[in-house]
Amino acid sequence: MKIDIITLFPDMALAPLSDSIMKRAQAAGLVEIQAHNLRDWATDKRRTVDDAPCGGGQGMVLMPGPLFAAVEELKTPHSKVILMTPQGTVFQQATARELSEETHLILLCGHYEGVDHRVIEQLVDLELSIGDYVLTNGAIAAAVVTDAIVRLLPGALGDARSSVEESFTDPHLLEAPVYTKPNSFRGHDVPAVLLSGDHKKILEWKSHAAKQRTQENRPDLGEC
Amino acid sequence: MKIDIITLFPDMALAPLSDSIMKRAQAAGLVEIQAHNLRDWATDKRRTVDDAPCGGGQGMVLMPGPLFAAVEELKTPHSKVILMTPQGTVFQQATARELSEETHLILLCGHYEGVDHRVIEQLVDLELSIGDYVLTNGAIAAAVVTDAIVRLLPGALGDARSSVEESFTDPHLLEAPVYTKPNSFRGHDVPAVLLSGDHKKILEWKSHAAKQRTQENRPDLGEC
Repeated sequence: MKIDIITLFPDMALAPLSDSIMKRAQAAGLVEIQAHNLRDWATDKRRTVDDAPCGGGQGMVLMPGPLFAAVEELKTPHSKVILMTPQGTVFQQATARELSEETHLILLCGHYEGVDHRVIEQLVDLELSIGDYVLTNGAIAAAVVTDAIVRLLPGALGDARSSVEESFTDPHLLEAPVYTKPNSFRGHDVPAVLLSGDHKKILEWKSHAAKQRTQENRPDLGEC
Repeated sequence: MKIDIITLFPDMALAPLSDSIMKRAQAAGLVEIQAHNLRDWATDKRRTVDDAPCGGGQGMVLMPGPLFAAVEELKTPHSKVILMTPQGTVFQQATARELSEETHLILLCGHYEGVDHRVIEQLVDLELSIGDYVLTNGAIAAAVVTDAIVRLLPGALGDARSSVEESFTDPHLLEAPVYTKPNSFRGHDVPAVLLSGDHKKILEWKSHAAKQRTQENRPDLGEC
């Protein structure tokens, strides 16, 4: 898989992907991740990529020219072009799974007030938001989406651990609480059942605790 | 404001916060952001911070000892301790606004299979998830939350632009499409009304277009 990120801040997008599992996935050749500076496709000496919004309003809008030029240079017949924007559909684990099947993703990062809408209508296959909050720019969002996708590539987790048994595999349930050593920490003990060795009882406890935790932290999931 | 991030990957958390608006906010003294390596609070030579889950299961769980030691060293009477976890309540713009009023945030980043539940019960004020997807670790999530909070601090956006008129200020509506120069790009024109200078008509167009865009990309927002 190849992922090209087009942004005004290539380091912001790449740095969170340069260690641990993401570093190993790239070293193992599972994915090639590159970040490009949008200004490389500007056509004037000052490397301008934005201008004031038509019809008034605050902030600056990314112009269509540099974004079209960037995508046209990087695109192949199998590319999927994604715009990171708070106006997009919300990224979820199911989206990550779908996108992990693609061969080439081009992630465009918004900044300032937004992106000229002709880019969205003519160039972009999918608009994605990582959540209902506003970031200073889309580079961090691109890193989030890349991380969530790459860790699903076969071999990325690098050990016997599978990405199947985990949060949001059942989208209606959070995971049960987990505990590790020591069995007693400052007077607070690991629940006895988890130390009992009785696998049937442990599974029952986990199932009950998962439901309770979902009810406490995410009652909305249960409603779905 | 001060933000301390406790993680196994300090660079991953800090790098996306070291440029542009986040860099200026720190340089202007609006916020002090530090990232600490959890292993600095390990007590053995190998700097161990995790162990196998009680009761079986895959992956490793962060032990309570190093996390308690880290928080106790950094905490003040006004600190709010937040754990980044896919099991948390979902971070939204309203959460960012609330947290931007705090004086000291300590962000704990999960990794591996999770964090010993005694940490959550005894040490953590708030569990936050940035969305319904799984990341390799919480460092990127901490960067997301930090970015969203810091840009709301008075003066952070650094110009006349306010953070009030933007996405999710009205949580039921996305923003209208935006356009900039050139007025015609490869045969695709900016909507004529935006070039008309008729402010009443422009506002009407924006209001209608915002509703249409919300209906297309986020019909769920309209239902609230």
